[in-house]
Amino acid sequence: MIILGIDPGIAMVGYSVIQCTGNNFKALEYGLISTSSKMLLPERLKKVYEELTDVIEEYEPDDLAIEELFFNKNVKTAIMVAQARGVEVLAAVNKGLSVYEYTPLQIKQAVTGYGRADKNQVQEMVKMLLNLKEKPKPDDVADALAVAICHGSSLRFKDEFLMK
Amino acid sequence: MIILGIDPGIAMVGYSVIQCTGNNFKALEYGLISTSSKMLLPERLKKVYEELTDVIEEYEPDDLAIEELFFNKNVKTAIMVAQARGVEVLAAVNKGLSVYEYTPLQIKQAVTGYGRADKNQVQEMVKMLLNLKEKPKPDDVADALAVAICHGSSLRFKDEFLMK
Repeated sequence: MIILGIDPGIAMVGYSVIQCTGNNFKALEYGLISTSSKMLLPERLKKVYEELTDVIEEYEPDDLAIEELFFNKNVKTAIMVAQARGVEVLAAVNKGLSVYEYTPLQIKQAVTGYGRADKNQVQEMVKMLLNLKEKPKPDDVADALAVAICHGSSLRFKDEFLMK
Repeated sequence: MIILGIDPGIAMVGYSVIQCTGNNFKALEYGLISTSSKMLLPERLKKVYEELTDVIEEYEPDDLAIEELFFNKNVKTAIMVAQARGVEVLAAVNKGLSVYEYTPLQIKQAVTGYGRADKNQVQEMVKMLLNLKEKPKPDDVADALAVAICHGSSLRFKDEFLMK
């Protein structure tokens, strides 16, 4: 089972591709899609869509696991990120992936066993579970790996997390 | 100049295609893309994207004019609509359209000359300007026609309304 993990965003979109065999996780690829705020938003959406589509075509993941969005106080940013998230989900569904979403709490719980773990603890566990030499950086990439691991650990209950 | 107008949404997406020659407007097509809340959201986004792409391929509009999003109190709905709006903008930019956005106030002002016009007044003016036999219905379709007319009336200043 191959899982695409996404930490939704517009300026920086963290993504990961992990292979999951039982309780064993292997990172096939991870990185960042970034778009400059100097670009017009439609062009930024297009870039994110195209680069994600390239990743999906290369690794042919089965499922997308993506973080749920929570609204902060900056409404303009919230609208932008939600629009980008729509495009990220579309890239996946257009290639036949099923889409699952997880809250930050569920992700932390799945990765560290503790819903109030801090970023550093999450990154240490991601590094350990994937047998990486270094902690994945920046946070967006670590979060994309974490949500993919979270989905891999939840496969038995995954229907509960289908994006509705 | 052919303009695609969109009233963003997910359950009901109003769209219009108008031809604009000087101050003369002609409706080439208008209608509603609807998706059931029984479908999963990724499938709803896919349906909206595909049906909009079909409209764009048929009429080859130059520009997309789309209403700006304002957040209401229902955050869940707001996130859903913003995700759908991202997909609607993507459908346009993927076919080479430039994207412009207008507030409800700007649209009412452009169509009726009065920013506080009610829905009925807007619909009456849309009917008159496009020489339609009946007022366009439902509201989503009337709004999609109105935003396209608004863009057609703003072409001299349109760079100001580029979606950023």
